[in-house]
This record gives sequence, C-alpha cells and structure tokens, in this order.
Amino acid sequence: MIEAAAERLAGRARRTPLLSSPVLNDLAGRQVFLKAECLQHTGSFKFRGAWNAVSALNPTGVIAFSSGNHAQGVALSARIKGIPAVIIMPADAPAIKIDNTRNLGAEVILYDRATEDRDEIGARLAAERGLTLIKPFDMAEVIAGQGTTGLEIADQAAELGVGDGQVFVPCGGGGLTSGIALALEARAPGLRVHPCEPEGFDDVARSQATGRLERNSRLSGSICDAIVTPQAGDLTWPVIQRLCGLGCVVTEEQALKAMGLAHDWLKVVLEPGGAVALAAALFSGGSGPVIAVASGGNVDRAMMIRALKI
Amino acid sequence: MIEAAAERLAGRARRTPLLSSPVLNDLAGRQVFLKAECLQHTGSFKFRGAWNAVSALNPTGVIAFSSGNHAQGVALSARIKGIPAVIIMPADAPAIKIDNTRNLGAEVILYDRATEDRDEIGARLAAERGLTLIKPFDMAEVIAGQGTTGLEIADQAAELGVGDGQVFVPCGGGGLTSGIALALEARAPGLRVHPCEPEGFDDVARSQATGRLERNSRLSGSICDAIVTPQAGDLTWPVIQRLCGLGCVVTEEQALKAMGLAHDWLKVVLEPGGAVALAAALFSGGSGPVIAVASGGNVDRAMMIRALKI
Repeated sequence: MIEAAAERLAGRARRTPLLSSPVLNDLAGRQVFLKAECLQHTGSFKFRGAWNAVSALNPTGVIAFSSGNHAQGVALSARIKGIPAVIIMPADAPAIKIDNTRNLGAEVILYDRATEDRDEIGARLAAERGLTLIKPFDMAEVIAGQGTTGLEIADQAAELGVGDGQVFVPCGGGGLTSGIALALEARAPGLRVHPCEPEGFDDVARSQATGRLERNSRLSGSICDAIVTPQAGDLTWPVIQRLCGLGCVVTEEQALKAMGLAHDWLKVVLEPGGAVALAAALFSGGSGPVIAVASGGNVDRAMMIRALKI
Repeated sequence: MIEAAAERLAGRARRTPLLSSPVLNDLAGRQVFLKAECLQHTGSFKFRGAWNAVSALNPTGVIAFSSGNHAQGVALSARIKGIPAVIIMPADAPAIKIDNTRNLGAEVILYDRATEDRDEIGARLAAERGLTLIKPFDMAEVIAGQGTTGLEIADQAAELGVGDGQVFVPCGGGGLTSGIALALEARAPGLRVHPCEPEGFDDVARSQATGRLERNSRLSGSICDAIVTPQAGDLTWPVIQRLCGLGCVVTEEQALKAMGLAHDWLKVVLEPGGAVALAAALFSGGSGPVIAVASGGNVDRAMMIRALKI
C-alpha cells in the first residue's frame, strides 16, 4: 500500500530534502539529519496521507475533523481532486487556521466544544451529503500515504551511506510513526523508528512501557498542539508496538530550542510539535546517526519569536 | 563549464527545492516559485561556486576575502578537500560570522579596515604559502558553479510545465545572476533572468539603464549586506548586459516583508539580501510565472524577529 501511495503522490507531493549542519552534529555529538516535511505542501506531512486517501478512495466529497494540519492536507487534496471538502473545527480554533482551511477552498463548519457533539454533526453531514470521512491517522490509506516519507528516508539515507541508525518521529496518533516504521521494515531494516513526544503527553512512551494502549490525561495546554491526541490508534499502535524502539520524551523548552537551532543552522521553520524529534536528536545524548523527522512548520509568528528568544 | 561544474557538484551540493504556496500566488496575482538556495550547505548558494573552483583548480590551499557567505562556502569546500583555507575578514565583522568561518576549519585573519590594506595582506600570504585566491564572483569557475542553480531551475520549471516566465535573482557582484542566465540561455530560453537589488545599491539596474558599468556610492548601511558590492564584475557584467531583462529594485521594508511571508507560507528562513528577489516577485506587480531565487538564509535572530514584527 505504501508503494501504491508513492505512485499516487509522485509529482504531487514534494520529495522533501534531508538537511544537516556540521554545527548541529558537533552539538549533538552525532550525525544528525532532518527530514524537512515542514517544506511539504500545506506545511506538514499531512498532505501525503490525505492525498493518498482521496486519490485511492475516489470519493465524491470528503469530511474531516481537525483544527490543524490534517484539515489543510484534506482541503488541498479535495481542491486538487475538484470535490467538496467539509472540515469540522471547534469554534475556538485559532482564526488563522480557520482562514487557511477556508483559503484552500474547504467549507468550515464550526461547533461549540461545550454544547455540541462533533461526531454527531459529522455523521449527519456525511449521510446527508454523501461525504467520505478522512480520519487523521487510524485509516490504512492515510498511514500508507504518511509511509511514503519512510520510502524517501530509506533512499536518502542510502545515498548518504547511512545503513544503520535511529529515526526519530514526532508522534501524536501514530500515523506518521507507523507508516515510516512499515516502510523502513521493508526498505531499510537497519533504521529503527523511535516515537517522540512532549512531556506530559507521552501516552505512546507509556504504552511501550506497560505493553497496553495508554491515554493522555490532558488534551490541551501543550505548545506542541499538532501532536496531542488522546491516544494512538487501533491500527497504528500494534505497528508501533511491533516495530519501534523506545520512545523519547522532550520538554517544551527543548522543543523551542530545537526550533531556534533549526532556524539558525538549517534555515527551516518548525512548529513546536514538529520540532520534538529534532529536540530528541540534539538533546537525548545517544550515539550513531539519527534522522529526525520535522513533521510540520505551521507556527504563528509570536511562537517563533518566543523560540528565537530562548 | 556549467555542465562540468554540475558533475563536480553531484552528490556534494544539495538540489534545493522549488517551493510555492497558493497564498503567495494570490498575494502576487501570479504564480510564484522560490528556488530555496538558503537550504544549500552553509546556508547560501556560495558553496556551489566555491566547491567548483576548489575542485576544478585542485589547489594546495586557498585564500578568500569575505565577511559573509563566500567565506563559509570556501571554508567548507577546503575542509572537504582537506586543504588549508585562509579567510581575510575585517576585524569589525560580526562575531558570529567569524566564528562560523572558524568552525568550518578556516584560518581567519582579521585586518583593520582603517589602517591596513587587505589586498596587500592577501597577496603576501598567497605568495608565502602558495595559496590560490578564490574570488567571490569575477572568476569563471565560480560563475560556472553558481550557474548549476540555473540548470536545476530549468529542470524544475520543465517538471512544473513552466516554459516561459521571469527568473528574479538577488544581484551583488553578479556571479549568481550571470551563471543562471548562461544556464538558462542554453536550457530554457523562455525563462528570462532579472537582477534584483535593494534601493540605494542598484548599480546593476543603473548600469542597464546607462549601458556602462556603474558603481554604488555607498558600500555599507544596508540590511541586505550579503549582496552589497561596489559594482558588477568584468566577467559578470557583459553576461548580464547581453542576457538579462531589466533589473528590479526593492525597498528594505519589502525585503523584510518577504522574509516574513517566506516564514509563514514556505517555512524557510531568508536573510534580507536573499529575500530581494522574492520581494520583487511579490510586490512588483508583473504577470505570468516568476521564479525567485532565495540566495541565502544567514540571518541573525534579531533581524528575523524584526522581519516577523513588520
């Protein structure tokens, strides 16, 4: 499925570069590479899974729940396909994310988190209008699309002569993590995926420790909002459990520092959630080559200024 | 020479991506693409020309005058080649640029701009130590190396189906501008290069108007320091005169705005001088596809914060 996704994404998604800097290598005491998915269309890897799902399922219209990167990936995919997209967002989502999603041609339906049930709204609209739900991570076509990032990593690592090493991936619901892990299992088994999470939202690391699917106690209050989800998915968790090495947990301050260092030395813009893997690569003290995936760069200016002032 | 340079750079330089955003297209009222040379090794296109010169001339040691991006390109090239590099910098150059050049393994020799003659210092050191001078722009091997950017633009534009359009290039001494113009003359004659300069340092635009090589009256005081030179070169100017369309001149405020928009929508970090071509693409009001070259991203945090607050 990942190979089929790569064919669908050819010429549509960007083959994002693998960046590095001697300064960051010295800082980390190891070779550090950044897979810059912040340079993907819509500013995050989410376009890959969304386009693969839209392209494979051939729906007449799509619907998604998201206040962030998934919304934009689905909206752009629908626009390219020429079909309607409905995105259900909380009314208190940041205005810029609502605007961005509308600018991509989607119909945004706002709901009140306190008084309305988004699943009920979604089910009703899907039935009324014949829309296909594109889930943010727990859907085979979406995981396969995200997995194309792993095929590129396998090729790019081989070009650099890196056969063995760690691959750090920002992990929320686990779509990107499991997709990359499946791709590398087949193409570059010497590269081991480690999920990376922010402190306080480390459900996957805890799940790896206990051997069963753990949940986060909080669902808001992190600057790493892009990768905060209640728990990993029914499809993604078994893959993570089978294929991934131990998870890394970083502090918000480490994520902000990684954003500043990516600005200084790699010239890319990361959002806090997209910087947790780079933070783990720089500050967790391991050895040997590490490829950190920068999952997204949709950060507002105030947050970037905060990162640059740390 | 450009094709030979491309062979020398294969696997050494990055093939930088051509980025775009629907938001920027809407803002400019035309299709805008950014050739992101800020993602090149050392954060600017300068590595291309430096590596090609070092690789083609096979010197036993190199020397360069530069306080900025050329210094880092030469230093990294020498380090890869395993030969000594001496960089002559003014003692009042920013500490970070001196540090970066030293971190890349170069010997930095500081001189006092008021009391010492850098050419005399350079000539003496070159003779004493058998070092080869790598000029910042007026040298065939350097122009050929920068021209490889143009070969990539020709391929990438063809992949996107863009056969006719403008190519905006930040222009100081004209090495990048003339190199790209020569590459496109052969490979994509429908793409026309236009040099872009900051207001007050528009010697090339004035030279195009008068038909003879004009000089800048000032040599400092621009935030676009990376592209401020006294005048274009004896090799670069005739190429610019023969092949380029009229130059664009942008204000410093427009360059800063372009930096902010590149942060928001393309997720890349530009320095002011590296943003003048994007500024011209966004704000000059032309029509048809335009490819803006982002020549570099070596900006300090304070300047980026300034751009983000505009």
